[in-house]
Amino acid sequence: MRAIFIAVGSELLELDRIDTNSLFISRKLREKGILMDMKITVGDNLENLSWTIKNACKRAQLVIVTGGLGPTEDDITREGTANALKKKLTFKEEIVSGIRAVFQKRGIKMPDINTRQAFVIEGAEVLPNSVGTAPGQYLDEKDCKVLLLPGPPREMQPMFEDIFARKIAPLSNFLMASRSLKFAGITESETDSMIADLYRKYKNPHTTILASPGFIEIHLLGRSKKSPEENKAITDQLAEKIKTRLADYFITEKDITFEEHIIQLLSTRNLTLSIAESCTGGGLGNRITNVPGSSEVFLGGVIAYSNELKMKILGVKKGTLEKKGAVSEQTALEMATGIRRLCQSDIGVAITGIAGPGGATQGKPVGLVCLHLSSEEAEQGVQKIFTGDRQIVKIRSENCCLNLIRQYLHRYQN
Amino acid sequence: MRAIFIAVGSELLELDRIDTNSLFISRKLREKGILMDMKITVGDNLENLSWTIKNACKRAQLVIVTGGLGPTEDDITREGTANALKKKLTFKEEIVSGIRAVFQKRGIKMPDINTRQAFVIEGAEVLPNSVGTAPGQYLDEKDCKVLLLPGPPREMQPMFEDIFARKIAPLSNFLMASRSLKFAGITESETDSMIADLYRKYKNPHTTILASPGFIEIHLLGRSKKSPEENKAITDQLAEKIKTRLADYFITEKDITFEEHIIQLLSTRNLTLSIAESCTGGGLGNRITNVPGSSEVFLGGVIAYSNELKMKILGVKKGTLEKKGAVSEQTALEMATGIRRLCQSDIGVAITGIAGPGGATQGKPVGLVCLHLSSEEAEQGVQKIFTGDRQIVKIRSENCCLNLIRQYLHRYQN
Repeated sequence: MRAIFIAVGSELLELDRIDTNSLFISRKLREKGILMDMKITVGDNLENLSWTIKNACKRAQLVIVTGGLGPTEDDITREGTANALKKKLTFKEEIVSGIRAVFQKRGIKMPDINTRQAFVIEGAEVLPNSVGTAPGQYLDEKDCKVLLLPGPPREMQPMFEDIFARKIAPLSNFLMASRSLKFAGITESETDSMIADLYRKYKNPHTTILASPGFIEIHLLGRSKKSPEENKAITDQLAEKIKTRLADYFITEKDITFEEHIIQLLSTRNLTLSIAESCTGGGLGNRITNVPGSSEVFLGGVIAYSNELKMKILGVKKGTLEKKGAVSEQTALEMATGIRRLCQSDIGVAITGIAGPGGATQGKPVGLVCLHLSSEEAEQGVQKIFTGDRQIVKIRSENCCLNLIRQYLHRYQN
Repeated sequence: MRAIFIAVGSELLELDRIDTNSLFISRKLREKGILMDMKITVGDNLENLSWTIKNACKRAQLVIVTGGLGPTEDDITREGTANALKKKLTFKEEIVSGIRAVFQKRGIKMPDINTRQAFVIEGAEVLPNSVGTAPGQYLDEKDCKVLLLPGPPREMQPMFEDIFARKIAPLSNFLMASRSLKFAGITESETDSMIADLYRKYKNPHTTILASPGFIEIHLLGRSKKSPEENKAITDQLAEKIKTRLADYFITEKDITFEEHIIQLLSTRNLTLSIAESCTGGGLGNRITNVPGSSEVFLGGVIAYSNELKMKILGVKKGTLEKKGAVSEQTALEMATGIRRLCQSDIGVAITGIAGPGGATQGKPVGLVCLHLSSEEAEQGVQKIFTGDRQIVKIRSENCCLNLIRQYLHRYQN
């Protein structure tokens, strides 16, 4: 079964807006072996939408449309779909009662305009909306199933999950198995050259390497008509081979961020953390404190942007700054030991570097970053030269620092 | 002139990937009065792509395709377009020489596979790639112009700008005038209720309100066939009316971020800044240090997540924390004066709050945030209750703090 996704709404074509419903839906479809062939964003134009749906139905067995189910004249998905499929729209009084009840719960009288939402395409199953007023519709046609969903994600998602599980997923004749592995401390091309000989041997599962600065995700998608056991076994086989080959860089298979993973590791070990940031300027603290409950583990930090602060708060020696410079392994060490002492944390980490575009000096290029981890058991420093613009260098530095913590925990606190 | 955009690449349909080239292109098109009717993402499937291009050419006068111009077998845009337009592909030896030169500059021998990039669609203008190896192609057909561009943004953008200015923009018969106004300290619904009576009177320009947490952008797009002066005059008229009505919240018309704007204001006034963050955990420092050159203005900060740090580094009084609590106007004041003293900066700001989901206490709900600005001329505090999840509360707090600095500079340093 192949799918086409259509997002409806002129606002999605304007300025910096972008459809994201397709990401949620394609992930769910993939889990059941249904791949998205195409995704389309179309404005609130009846003729364009009808044409798009009509053509999509010629090419796919499943067409999913989000948006355009509201009560205003701009909301043309019902009419556009009816036109495309040459079907009638019928007014259903019972839908109006449902919508009226939603408004009553909010203590408001239903505006007359909302009766527009009670038109149903001939033969469609009406999908109740547990969150908003716009009902969805599902057309179980022979050649192509058509699913109409509201645009707001919190209305769309539960409605999709329900109808997908009941009616669509059972139609997929592909069996799926997937694994998702996360790595750090290795580049995309290093990853590929280390595992290409492994995954190239497999036509199934399909391997995708997703790289973001300082962070690699490897997705394996086993999609087959063979037995589920066989499909799962072959996917697991490749996953384990890749994990073994890249063991030094492996983080987790959980669906969490790198910082969440580190907070969990620290939390289960009852260890506290403090950070001293120079070039990342609070970026690492920001990511760590994005994790709910991080306050149990993270005591605080200093953004020691100026040399004065490095000396005054963290106790970096004047001589170190003069002889080695603010971006040096020795300064990183003194920053890390300084923040650990100040916060009385189990672990102190420090990042100092040149994020660019300015700031390079003789022998110290843009992208040079020194990191250090200080603890009772170990002092570990690392020096890197990262590529990329200012923000990329910051993110690479943060991920490198998280990786330093990961390696330390693996070695000393396992 | 109406346009359809097509992004080619199976990776754009997989997992969390999304096309963003369309955002850059639609912005440029809009400036010249060309609107995008539809955008489509299609995988590396020759038949799907040919079909999509063929149909797009039936509906639009301009079809822009990005991606799929690389040297591998997956790169099917040349062939797909030729098939769609029923045109031949011709091999051009001079293109190979150009690509070979790019490789030579990098000190590498050109792989044979790259000769695939030398096939040109009959009648197409070859667009040289100043950054990478893939040349673009432009077909100046009578009914529909077709533009093929490489996928990587840094290759695509200069190539698009050149051909667009030379050949496409001059064809647009709409005159454009646009204004973009940025505001803070006001919500989307407050904005709309304050200016709806103004902009509803105008059919042209078209008004769009874009809201992100704690930050509002109002775009006016005047698009008309009347004289350029008349179109500009009416757009400016509405822009000025909106600016006057929302004067207290107006930030800038420049295409910069809120933090860039604040750094510029501080820089021209020769003022230095330090920050003490609790609930935002480094988020504000991170944004400020994303701005190149911010080190001239920003001295540093403290992420005082724990009460101990608030006392030890910032000098917040034990009695304040005990009597008023860590999230209180008095604590914010002592944090701000403390960080200013420590860093010897002109301005010190502080943020303390409950970002959630945990941490609420009797009388102090999730979303409660206290902010303070300390300077020689003024002490200004503000208390807010923000809605949204943990990250949204953090971003709203950061923007509220930037707005506090903006208001202070406006009042005391103008």
